[in-house]
Amino acid sequence: MNLRYNKNLYFCTTNMEKPLILITNDDGIFAAGLRTLINAAEIGETVVVAPEKAQSGMSHAVTIAEPVRINKIMNTNGHLEYSCTGTPADCVKIGLHKVLTKKPDIILSGINHGSNASVNIVYSGTMAAVIEGAMNHIPSVGFSLDDYSPSADFSFTIPYVKKIIKKVLEHKLPSGVCLNVNFPYIDPSLIKGIKVCRQAKAYWDECFEERIDPHNRNYYWLVGNFIYDDNDDDTDYKALQDNYISIVPIDCDFTSYKHLNEIKNIDFNV
Amino acid sequence: MNLRYNKNLYFCTTNMEKPLILITNDDGIFAAGLRTLINAAEIGETVVVAPEKAQSGMSHAVTIAEPVRINKIMNTNGHLEYSCTGTPADCVKIGLHKVLTKKPDIILSGINHGSNASVNIVYSGTMAAVIEGAMNHIPSVGFSLDDYSPSADFSFTIPYVKKIIKKVLEHKLPSGVCLNVNFPYIDPSLIKGIKVCRQAKAYWDECFEERIDPHNRNYYWLVGNFIYDDNDDDTDYKALQDNYISIVPIDCDFTSYKHLNEIKNIDFNV
Repeated sequence: MNLRYNKNLYFCTTNMEKPLILITNDDGIFAAGLRTLINAAEIGETVVVAPEKAQSGMSHAVTIAEPVRINKIMNTNGHLEYSCTGTPADCVKIGLHKVLTKKPDIILSGINHGSNASVNIVYSGTMAAVIEGAMNHIPSVGFSLDDYSPSADFSFTIPYVKKIIKKVLEHKLPSGVCLNVNFPYIDPSLIKGIKVCRQAKAYWDECFEERIDPHNRNYYWLVGNFIYDDNDDDTDYKALQDNYISIVPIDCDFTSYKHLNEIKNIDFNV
Repeated sequence: MNLRYNKNLYFCTTNMEKPLILITNDDGIFAAGLRTLINAAEIGETVVVAPEKAQSGMSHAVTIAEPVRINKIMNTNGHLEYSCTGTPADCVKIGLHKVLTKKPDIILSGINHGSNASVNIVYSGTMAAVIEGAMNHIPSVGFSLDDYSPSADFSFTIPYVKKIIKKVLEHKLPSGVCLNVNFPYIDPSLIKGIKVCRQAKAYWDECFEERIDPHNRNYYWLVGNFIYDDNDDDTDYKALQDNYISIVPIDCDFTSYKHLNEIKNIDFNV
């Protein structure tokens, strides 16, 4: 039985002229970045399904060993909000299958408190939500600001977010592809524009800070420094450094086509 | 200060002729699939750092909002085991930075109880562990069996796992690339061999099964059916269907190079 977009639903778009926009994030429903994204999405009928608490670093985790709950927290004309006990990927799934009555025109995630450029995408709940959207063949865009502060000023991003939403609604996106948008956190007058680029090679130089609890048992905090490890300039990280807003198209197909023939040349059957 | 492979470490390989093998999984340290993988890795000096409880569907989640603990549970000649409170990706990180004294020659993950072919890789903790390995430029291989039963018989996989470990140690892997190996669960005599292929296009046709708790509040269980959605035969899913063991090379760079120029042609600056 296919329950997708079934009858037992809570929300039906009423204005057929406005695009239906599903919004989520990974910093939780009360995050400043999410509020900015909702403001920027005012051209549409907006439905928010966001985690009830912060889910940073949750990547594409899904809740399968326990159930998920949602809680309606706002319902005004053309805008609806649910908090969800699950991960960002759960939010998109339950948004599509239990909250919305029809497929949204676009899924937005963010605006994340902290960069998701380069290898950060691997750990990102923000980007997992839009990858989940792309896996459902829905144009999906994740937005992140290169600053981790909960009180960062996101307001300058609004005209750019509006423009990107408009362009994606106009052009759509290739099936299975979503966008990873990152904003530099600089004086807005210094921003040079938007640049489409590739994911930078980089790594986290990590260690575990060791502490001893009051019961004399060790515990470890993961800490690390981001190390850029790319020889070329056509990357998202370099674009941010050069005061551009970066956009990287992300594929749900993780096959290394670049190295597929090389691996085929290893004869595993001998 | 770079604490990687520092002095305050617990384990130092003693036999320089044997490869050093770091092993993890996402079904937890007591899973049958992990025990099979340890057996198959007997050619090496084996160090296990595996989740203390099941972490299926955790994808590349990392534990950052709370500390991680490890607990030594076995230390015999040439074999060491730690359980870890964290995710599979945490296990690899703490294995590399706190348990091992030197870089392992190879990282293995699995054998997962259930297929990680096609889009399942996106949700997989097993494969996140090996992607983490590839991000650290260590040859890394994830193994999965196309059967979810905790009591599945993994024994037939051992000669194949041994062969794949040997080939990867011989040939290494391209930087930033790891392998996603999936076994069909069939009469071993029917297995036709090993096939290197690409990730299949597919999706989960999902819904949320709605229930009401004793306090009259709704909760939802995610359930779904896997739907193959690919027109071609050169895929991992098709290989499994045709009684082959599938190997897909996976890239840590998620950029959609196939569609990069198409996205560049959208003028986001106008």
